[in-house]
Amino acid sequence: MNVHPLGVPDLAEIKKTADRIRPYVHRTPVMTCSAINGMVGADLFFKCENLQKVGAFKFRGATNAVLMLDDKAAPRGVATVSSGNHAAGLSLAARARGIPAYVVMPDNSARVKIDAVAGYGAHIIFCAPTMEAREQAVADLVERTGATLVHPYNDYRIIAGQATATLELIEDTPGLDVVMTPIGGGGLTSGASLVVHYCSPSTKMIAAEPEGANDAFRSFHSGRIVPSENPTTIADGLRSSLGEKTFPIIQEFVDDIVTVSEDGIVRAMRTIWERMKIIVEPSAAVPLGALLEGRVPVSGKRVGIILSGGNVDLEQLPWLAKGA
Amino acid sequence: MNVHPLGVPDLAEIKKTADRIRPYVHRTPVMTCSAINGMVGADLFFKCENLQKVGAFKFRGATNAVLMLDDKAAPRGVATVSSGNHAAGLSLAARARGIPAYVVMPDNSARVKIDAVAGYGAHIIFCAPTMEAREQAVADLVERTGATLVHPYNDYRIIAGQATATLELIEDTPGLDVVMTPIGGGGLTSGASLVVHYCSPSTKMIAAEPEGANDAFRSFHSGRIVPSENPTTIADGLRSSLGEKTFPIIQEFVDDIVTVSEDGIVRAMRTIWERMKIIVEPSAAVPLGALLEGRVPVSGKRVGIILSGGNVDLEQLPWLAKGA
Repeated sequence: MNVHPLGVPDLAEIKKTADRIRPYVHRTPVMTCSAINGMVGADLFFKCENLQKVGAFKFRGATNAVLMLDDKAAPRGVATVSSGNHAAGLSLAARARGIPAYVVMPDNSARVKIDAVAGYGAHIIFCAPTMEAREQAVADLVERTGATLVHPYNDYRIIAGQATATLELIEDTPGLDVVMTPIGGGGLTSGASLVVHYCSPSTKMIAAEPEGANDAFRSFHSGRIVPSENPTTIADGLRSSLGEKTFPIIQEFVDDIVTVSEDGIVRAMRTIWERMKIIVEPSAAVPLGALLEGRVPVSGKRVGIILSGGNVDLEQLPWLAKGA
Repeated sequence: MNVHPLGVPDLAEIKKTADRIRPYVHRTPVMTCSAINGMVGADLFFKCENLQKVGAFKFRGATNAVLMLDDKAAPRGVATVSSGNHAAGLSLAARARGIPAYVVMPDNSARVKIDAVAGYGAHIIFCAPTMEAREQAVADLVERTGATLVHPYNDYRIIAGQATATLELIEDTPGLDVVMTPIGGGGLTSGASLVVHYCSPSTKMIAAEPEGANDAFRSFHSGRIVPSENPTTIADGLRSSLGEKTFPIIQEFVDDIVTVSEDGIVRAMRTIWERMKIIVEPSAAVPLGALLEGRVPVSGKRVGIILSGGNVDLEQLPWLAKGA
């Protein structure tokens, strides 16, 4: 793997990653919406990773990790602990290479998430919903199968894979003043910030986070990883803590992290559905939420936004919540 | 206007129309979805007019009609009777040319539709919800303003405009075995069938219609226009009767009209939302509904489908209906 002096993937590595995954991933469109531009007072360019395979950018990193396995490790498969988009992405990526995927999920996971992962052909291992049970289940699994564990974000193969979304955005939309991503564990944000640093250094890199899960905001401003404890946000993709591989990149190459209210997230999500006619999950709406709440000065600027995913339970729309 | 010997727009006219409206309309993407291909057993190519301006293909024809007004007629504006996508499209097209749009709407129209049309800057004239009141209101309006009446579909300027969606689909997706549209008044279908006839004559042209509003199906098979009486379908864009300009084109150039159940429409709509992460209105889901119900033999074929629009009340999703 080619590395930057800091030990993180360099531009050559990210470009090699883009070449490696290109046959397997969608080059998603960049969409614009004049109505939303009018609301924000800026020109927004939405990179539609909600239209990526499995409905999320996570498929990029997962595909890269699967393709980088050598011929000895590959047949034993890949494993992860996740009930979300990374599990779905890893399962489909493994299926594309014809190798097994093992996913450890808490036994109280939502039916819709279990079905999604099962639908991509993964072997699901249920465990009790505690940290200890989960770690034990993973250890047993790896011991038994020899599968390679692929972390959802704290892994340079994953970071380089997620970076390719921003590489495409910048190729398709030159002259951006700002690039924005939502931030959870930091895989998407760290990859994006590397690409901005390498390819468009005058562009500001800003991450947006729910107020109710503001551990990245606090980590960024305190200079050490603050764990995410009892996060309370509808943005279910953004409840993780930063990792020791993502945090240093974010410290070095991200210009700012801003937060947004829960109401702001729901309002932004609904605005995207209504005005752009595309389905995004709450996490994907977080950057626009921050802009609609005036948290970033972007007046008159060109702003690229990664719409991270579109996996939503269509029975449970937040603006139809009971009592709302 | 260039015409075919039958008196309908010829290919040169449709290409001239495409050139005329190109600066104002989106060239919408053609999307594919391997999961849906698997369900149908065919390769489907979705032309995403739900992502068109105002969220519907109707903006194409409306823009063409507005741009074709001469300098004497234009300042007096355009008028129509509609509470749907045509009204929104005509209003935005008029605003783009800087001329007034007048829309007659029954005074019991849904708030969300009134707001949409008002949002595009149209003058709204309310009338009682009867045929007589509507006709009187239009007559008074045209008398008073001198505005040019633009029918939603029974007008060759509109038909040529809607045809451009299929022209783009065929340009972007060569070798289609079948093209499918939903059918209501027939503006979209007649335009599509002309393009298929001129540009891809070996392609079958098939329209799909709700069982509960099957007037086009009955007209096609009986050889005379059967009016749409008491249509009962969730596909609110498909309740109109064919017109004397659209019907002869459809008789001549459409290969078949098939119908689909209400359950099939809702299932197809939800499938598109879940699998493609895009928002389509019930009318747009009608062709896929017909395929999922096995109404058209398409096994192994390449099928182009016009997704006609994406305007849905997000408070009223059909799979969340009370008691469902």
